[in-house]
Amino acid sequence: MNVDAANAEALHRIASAQAFLVDVRPAGEVIPGIGEALLHAGPPLTNWAEACGALRGAIAGTLLQLGKASSLTAAEAAAASGAIELRPANDVNALATYGGVINARTPLLVVENRESGVRAFAALNEGRGRALRYGANDANTLARLAWLEGEFAELLGSAVRLCKGVDLFALLAQALHMGDDGHSRQKAASALFLNAIAAFIVEADFGKEQTTRGLRFIAQNEIFFLPMTMAAAKCALASAAHIPGSTVVTCMCVNGVRFGVKVSGLGDRWCTAPLPTIHGRYFENYGPDDANPVIGDSEIAEAFGLGAFAMAAAPALSRYVGGTPEEAKRLSEQMYSITLAEHQRFTIPALGFRGAPLAIDARLVVKRGIEPIFNTGIAHREPGVGQIGAGFGHAPRACFETALEALSNAAP
Amino acid sequence: MNVDAANAEALHRIASAQAFLVDVRPAGEVIPGIGEALLHAGPPLTNWAEACGALRGAIAGTLLQLGKASSLTAAEAAAASGAIELRPANDVNALATYGGVINARTPLLVVENRESGVRAFAALNEGRGRALRYGANDANTLARLAWLEGEFAELLGSAVRLCKGVDLFALLAQALHMGDDGHSRQKAASALFLNAIAAFIVEADFGKEQTTRGLRFIAQNEIFFLPMTMAAAKCALASAAHIPGSTVVTCMCVNGVRFGVKVSGLGDRWCTAPLPTIHGRYFENYGPDDANPVIGDSEIAEAFGLGAFAMAAAPALSRYVGGTPEEAKRLSEQMYSITLAEHQRFTIPALGFRGAPLAIDARLVVKRGIEPIFNTGIAHREPGVGQIGAGFGHAPRACFETALEALSNAAP
Repeated sequence: MNVDAANAEALHRIASAQAFLVDVRPAGEVIPGIGEALLHAGPPLTNWAEACGALRGAIAGTLLQLGKASSLTAAEAAAASGAIELRPANDVNALATYGGVINARTPLLVVENRESGVRAFAALNEGRGRALRYGANDANTLARLAWLEGEFAELLGSAVRLCKGVDLFALLAQALHMGDDGHSRQKAASALFLNAIAAFIVEADFGKEQTTRGLRFIAQNEIFFLPMTMAAAKCALASAAHIPGSTVVTCMCVNGVRFGVKVSGLGDRWCTAPLPTIHGRYFENYGPDDANPVIGDSEIAEAFGLGAFAMAAAPALSRYVGGTPEEAKRLSEQMYSITLAEHQRFTIPALGFRGAPLAIDARLVVKRGIEPIFNTGIAHREPGVGQIGAGFGHAPRACFETALEALSNAAP
Repeated sequence: MNVDAANAEALHRIASAQAFLVDVRPAGEVIPGIGEALLHAGPPLTNWAEACGALRGAIAGTLLQLGKASSLTAAEAAAASGAIELRPANDVNALATYGGVINARTPLLVVENRESGVRAFAALNEGRGRALRYGANDANTLARLAWLEGEFAELLGSAVRLCKGVDLFALLAQALHMGDDGHSRQKAASALFLNAIAAFIVEADFGKEQTTRGLRFIAQNEIFFLPMTMAAAKCALASAAHIPGSTVVTCMCVNGVRFGVKVSGLGDRWCTAPLPTIHGRYFENYGPDDANPVIGDSEIAEAFGLGAFAMAAAPALSRYVGGTPEEAKRLSEQMYSITLAEHQRFTIPALGFRGAPLAIDARLVVKRGIEPIFNTGIAHREPGVGQIGAGFGHAPRACFETALEALSNAAP
């Protein structure tokens, strides 16, 4: 198959994906062989010394939570000794938000591409501010997480099973007309999700206290929908992986040390490059010197054509990431020159209802010299502090050059 | 007090209003002296022959529903005989959506301006399509209405009392950043409202069936928030009425025959003019010849600086009303030349977060020759059909000329 035909097939598979939230299940049940491993964001880490502050904080908090360490210090020591196996979540179709890690007991949102049958997984969102995924691991953070992964996950799982699946792309398409970018701003999608699931949460019949706690948590968490977007994008992109010769990007993510990209024709192989600069807007009393190196799997949103690629849909967000609505529009428009098509389903009012850029072609990134843009949160560089800002960066061109070279070497 | 000082006071009162949904109560309990009257939209009607199709349909349906007529034909005959007293809802701080009427048993949303203590009232929204307010009055429409005004109103009222008031302007301000105009598009505000009230609906403890029916109705009604916007705007504007000399507009509405305006300095006096042309976009198989003459109190949204005045906030809506996002932006921007200030609270991302136009000055309308724009739904001209489109029009300059003349005659 030549490259254009391979890319056309990849494009078709991404464009035709139908992502439904179908269940909430412990990782051990849906990811065979997870064992005792911790799944982290981004491409593989070579050793513990590479783990950034947010990841170290999340890992220490997780080991404490699991009873595998008696203190945060002991947990860090255990991890540093190499006793803890770390694996990239993306390699098993799971996604870790920022520094968050997934263990066998983590309840995962199960999102299914009903077109291809491919499933992808992501952990529940804890909310903003002091969250384990940003490296916070104090007692309050861990107590909230215990509730989230216990009582709340049980409630949401029952509701999701009762409703026979929530059409996530339908919600995302509406959210893009309501000021969301589909990555950093999830306010509309989160509100619409509660509208879709509230009656089923009541039908799940867990009693007034548990029900109202669950409803209030979703209602007050403006970023609740983020992991659903991530898993939805992943189950679409993963369906387009492993097409020989295809230069379409199926994954973008960061591990705090390297940016990682996968392209369809290379299957599971990672193409990595050093971290790009993040252009951030910081919360009061914080600045670039406090920032954790960027980490997270949420750039899957941009690989799917949302997030910074659809920034023009979210003028209110442009302030949050330090720019203006005009700048947001200009950045989104640039992305059309490195993508093969436009989404039919996801349209952007501020661009005259033009479809969001669809299917990044690694060839175009290299040829045009335009690097894919992505949005990101920013955590403090020390474990235990949490989120201190948000911003955007560019996926390094070197990742795409490496991919093209590897594809060219693999060609018959 | 000179005009500028009077207008500054009116402006201050409108800008400082704090609108909270505080209760749901039958009209008979909150509108003293409503008696057997039916409250309709717009300025006063002089006789039954002036009642347009949608209003006739709504009145006939209401009389049937109340058991005051044995058939729709008998109901129309009773109304035509003059046995039914018709009064403008606005005169008692109530608002009728489109052709809908309010009777003593109608459950009303009670919205209080916590700054001034002024209360305003509006009926619950039935949803789109075949609705009594659009003149539909078949058995299904009346059955839905009976459920809405019975079981549902009881549930919502209990929830609202439990939550000690919903801050409607806080929701509206967010909704303007989420693609709503605050009048014809209420998708974001409706979704946010359910987020705010869902847990209280569960706490109200009405049992699983009633609770889930209520949650689903709100979740599936994208225009549910409209009457709350109307009552919120009214309780702000009514607080600025009766300031001697003030030329600030406190009310705009239509009765199917005449457009009606109130300005602060004239208190309760109506200034009316013949209907303006509506520029509409029609549902399939319908056109301008099928249209009911415009009617409704929802233009209170525009009098408050939302709706068509904030059309730039709602690019997705511009299609619905037949224009483009650029046209929507241009129309909104024109409105700044007839208003005295800009809302601090309600900002429009697409205009660089500029505040929505605030406080229409009748002097500026006349001097500049720019008529206030308003959005509206469009019903079929025959009773019983329902909504067939949506569009926009301009409040006739003659209303404002009449007001200025009356004020000048009243001046000492």
